[in-house]
Amino acid sequence: MNAPDGGCLPPGSVIGILGGGQLGRMAAMAAARLGYRAHVYTDRGSSPALEVSARGTVAPFDDRAALARFCDDVAAASYEFENVPVGAAEFVAARVPLRPSPKVLAVAQDRLLEKEFVRKAGAGTAAFAAVDGLGDLAPALAGVGLPALLKTRREGYDGKGQVRIDAAEDAERAWESIGAAPAVVEAWVPFEREVSVVLARAPGGAIAAYDPTENRHEGGILAASAVPARVPAGVAEEARETARRIAGALDCEGVLAVEMFVLPDGELLVNEIAPRPHNSGHWTIDAAETSQFEQQVRICAGLPLGSVRRTADAVMRNLIGDDAERWPAFVREGRDRLHLYGKDEARPGRKMGHVTRLFPLGAGGFEADDVP
Amino acid sequence: MNAPDGGCLPPGSVIGILGGGQLGRMAAMAAARLGYRAHVYTDRGSSPALEVSARGTVAPFDDRAALARFCDDVAAASYEFENVPVGAAEFVAARVPLRPSPKVLAVAQDRLLEKEFVRKAGAGTAAFAAVDGLGDLAPALAGVGLPALLKTRREGYDGKGQVRIDAAEDAERAWESIGAAPAVVEAWVPFEREVSVVLARAPGGAIAAYDPTENRHEGGILAASAVPARVPAGVAEEARETARRIAGALDCEGVLAVEMFVLPDGELLVNEIAPRPHNSGHWTIDAAETSQFEQQVRICAGLPLGSVRRTADAVMRNLIGDDAERWPAFVREGRDRLHLYGKDEARPGRKMGHVTRLFPLGAGGFEADDVP
Repeated sequence: MNAPDGGCLPPGSVIGILGGGQLGRMAAMAAARLGYRAHVYTDRGSSPALEVSARGTVAPFDDRAALARFCDDVAAASYEFENVPVGAAEFVAARVPLRPSPKVLAVAQDRLLEKEFVRKAGAGTAAFAAVDGLGDLAPALAGVGLPALLKTRREGYDGKGQVRIDAAEDAERAWESIGAAPAVVEAWVPFEREVSVVLARAPGGAIAAYDPTENRHEGGILAASAVPARVPAGVAEEARETARRIAGALDCEGVLAVEMFVLPDGELLVNEIAPRPHNSGHWTIDAAETSQFEQQVRICAGLPLGSVRRTADAVMRNLIGDDAERWPAFVREGRDRLHLYGKDEARPGRKMGHVTRLFPLGAGGFEADDVP
Repeated sequence: MNAPDGGCLPPGSVIGILGGGQLGRMAAMAAARLGYRAHVYTDRGSSPALEVSARGTVAPFDDRAALARFCDDVAAASYEFENVPVGAAEFVAARVPLRPSPKVLAVAQDRLLEKEFVRKAGAGTAAFAAVDGLGDLAPALAGVGLPALLKTRREGYDGKGQVRIDAAEDAERAWESIGAAPAVVEAWVPFEREVSVVLARAPGGAIAAYDPTENRHEGGILAASAVPARVPAGVAEEARETARRIAGALDCEGVLAVEMFVLPDGELLVNEIAPRPHNSGHWTIDAAETSQFEQQVRICAGLPLGSVRRTADAVMRNLIGDDAERWPAFVREGRDRLHLYGKDEARPGRKMGHVTRLFPLGAGGFEADDVP
């Protein structure tokens, strides 16, 4: 088919996805709905995204020959997790449009760069300080106060690579527990709730931001998200505006998620950012006019952003490890939308799927106290 | 994962799909959402369904070795078009659960058997008569009256293999135009509108029937479908009941579509049946709590039927041949859901995709005169 919009990819084009997890799986399915083909590049043979696409490459991210073949096959690309090595992303970006850019990836991979960037963009964060070695830790703790969180700069997710420090004498043990790696220490924030804003930003700067989502964590992992978030309208708008400001400062061409703490007085502090569809935005598949995964595809393909209007209130529950055994309950409920990721083994902490429970507009969110 | 419901397939199981067209593509995507793997068996290398699944077999339907390997890989199977050879279906059904059964397929493949079956099930049809040779045609036409339709018994779809006869002297030309193949002649029905009912019937006999859909054809091909259909509540319930009766008589374990003519006095005459998800049920993806494709997967997997409750009014437009060039308009409209099938070449008459326009409950259907 032709592409009457100058520059957009005609249906049938191949969109590359770096990473093979559930986010890539849902992106590949969104691509298929619009008539695009997906090519999944992953370094793991057993990857959820590989199952839903005829095109896949299983190779390390430093295999330049495999990356080159991947680039030859795709018309544009994106990534589905932020630990894709920046070198691989730069290799791809030199050959095909990669959205978001490797620069955005580099910022998101390093907690210190990320926090500095967020501050420079004019958004608030908890007090923080760099910790390059054990010797930095005591002065850093003195600066940010106790309790504090010590987090590795790189490769932490789902609560891994971080530890809470309540007393100065715990510092050395904490440092060792995170692997004595370059880190950042940040003040513990007595937040009232956590919200996140997922937005889509097109090349050229147009932004469509979804309603803020309220998140509940258990054991450092996102357990459930609800929309609308229980915050005043002014705070919701400020959260959206904060996310927009960061996306603009990053010149992010893609989907961006910004997690924020809401303090009792309504102040917002940015916790972290992710330049990709986000677990807290999974409700958009079933309760928004366009899903976050379709936005990612649209941005890759040069299509206009889709409508972010909500069609329902929603509570999304992650099915983690053995939670997934509850799946039969969710196929019996008309208002529940079950999504399983096709992973074979339900290891503790492993995200096996999610379920989104829908409510009429105005009747849901955590206020309804009806979490699947 | 385990399968706590006795007999249902645990997520991760492989569901086989005989046929590789867009119906198989949408079924494979529905399977993936529930964590199942799809294995597509098609006799054509360039098949829409192959693109969305890691597992595929491209082989003729009479390749018993390929069919045997397919059966070894899948835990259950279904078909996505009714011209799968019955012999192939029987081969599969002898090895794995095939839903619906080959018997249902055999009835749906032959217009004469189908009409006889529908009559036996207590539903009405237009007057019809078998035409095995040219010599049968004149008496058949005398029996059913003029105008009439001459249709091949086998392999007709989208208006192919059929011709209208207005005068007795056109009979011989008509007979040749359909290839002088075994046929059926049926009375032309002065219908007010055409509706179809898509239902899902589980092993054991539970049935969930969607709201009747109103269909518009152009050039013998379905052009658009709308729900709700503009028929009185009593006619809608009678249409559902007719479809249920036929599904029960067939002992159909699967999705069944029944097309019916609505006469000016409200009488219903069955036009044809299809034992699979149907073009007129595509709106269920975006406007029902469970899509017709998910129902097909649920029945294969032994899960309970999903809710058929509608969440919106809807008008579905097929994108046929060059219609597909209109796709950019549909990615700009929040209320439109675009589905493209990934076919390379937009030949005339070829179904390239569809778009479903959503309306609030009570505000849509053809009454709204707002067809995408």
